[in-house]
Amino acid sequence: MANTRGLLIVLSGPSGVGKGTVRAAVFKNNIFNYVYSVSATTRAMRPGEVDGKDYYFVSREEFEHLIETNALLEHAEYVGNYYGTPIQKIEENLAAGNDVFLEIEVQGALKVRERMPEGVFIFLAPPNLKELESRITGRGTDDAAVIYERMRMAREEIELMQHYDYVVVNDKVDNAVNKINAIIQSEHLKVDRVIDQIKAEIHNYFQKEEY
Amino acid sequence: MANTRGLLIVLSGPSGVGKGTVRAAVFKNNIFNYVYSVSATTRAMRPGEVDGKDYYFVSREEFEHLIETNALLEHAEYVGNYYGTPIQKIEENLAAGNDVFLEIEVQGALKVRERMPEGVFIFLAPPNLKELESRITGRGTDDAAVIYERMRMAREEIELMQHYDYVVVNDKVDNAVNKINAIIQSEHLKVDRVIDQIKAEIHNYFQKEEY
Repeated sequence: MANTRGLLIVLSGPSGVGKGTVRAAVFKNNIFNYVYSVSATTRAMRPGEVDGKDYYFVSREEFEHLIETNALLEHAEYVGNYYGTPIQKIEENLAAGNDVFLEIEVQGALKVRERMPEGVFIFLAPPNLKELESRITGRGTDDAAVIYERMRMAREEIELMQHYDYVVVNDKVDNAVNKINAIIQSEHLKVDRVIDQIKAEIHNYFQKEEY
Repeated sequence: MANTRGLLIVLSGPSGVGKGTVRAAVFKNNIFNYVYSVSATTRAMRPGEVDGKDYYFVSREEFEHLIETNALLEHAEYVGNYYGTPIQKIEENLAAGNDVFLEIEVQGALKVRERMPEGVFIFLAPPNLKELESRITGRGTDDAAVIYERMRMAREEIELMQHYDYVVVNDKVDNAVNKINAIIQSEHLKVDRVIDQIKAEIHNYFQKEEY
């Protein structure tokens, strides 16, 4: 059987929607053997973090070299630190037939879409905006102006949903994980992914049988 | 929440692949409440069959009236009897938000695709052609010429797979059912199906909050 290229799965969604929690739940059992795409960052390693597992921790110079050599699928700067997605491991895994799972901010996901439009882009949405508001408030701020600004940002991010393939509502983490797995399973069943292999098999059968 | 139109799910595949068995297994539990599309036929009712459940049993005149009034999604004649798919119940169910499940021959499915291109077309494929051959043989013929003819027909049908959306290999009935359910679940999560509803919700939220 010919080796089929893996799928690039991009999970994204507005700040506060629970991307990290859902991603952790996907990888808790990881029955489908997805490979997690580890980001690179220039921020300091925190206690408990492991280089190459949580992030690739690199210097500013190293990161800028990655940018210059086009080695990142996307990158961004937050609060003085760089964050980015190294492309090489992703490419190696996809070529080996592994599905690669990327959890990323909305803006970064759209940059990934430009370079790898064949990826499966999943937008994680809040059950409703009231719920998102209470999650944002729950993070420790109740300054009305800050909440207002975050909700406006969330609205802008949600409106970018149209550039994605699928929307999964994060009502319960288990539900979201099941839906994500169903999406990936069904993407593997698309005709374009299997037709060459089946045509080759037909060809072989009719040769062997001397039809 | 706005009522979303149901999905038309079309399960097809070459003769002998096990469409009927898989369809029966899908409907055994039917956890997703699919509605089965009952065909119309002019053939005689067999013992145990129920009119309106197994088929709509109609006269030749009634069937020809259905054809003339464009009331069938597709129809065909086998061994002197008509078989066809009445469109009205399908339309009613889709409009009510129910997913309608149709199990049908390959040629009929392609006619359905012409009239309802938005349907989800699933091709049930044999694990391999040797397996299909033994299933065809197991149906009680071992005349080499007959098997040859059926296998050639199967080849032609398999080559029509390119007009479908998904391919499910019928290696084990339970696997096939799980894959079909995953496909339908993921089709419900496509951005185009949910984006209007989510945009309306954003609009409502920002109106209520007086943002």
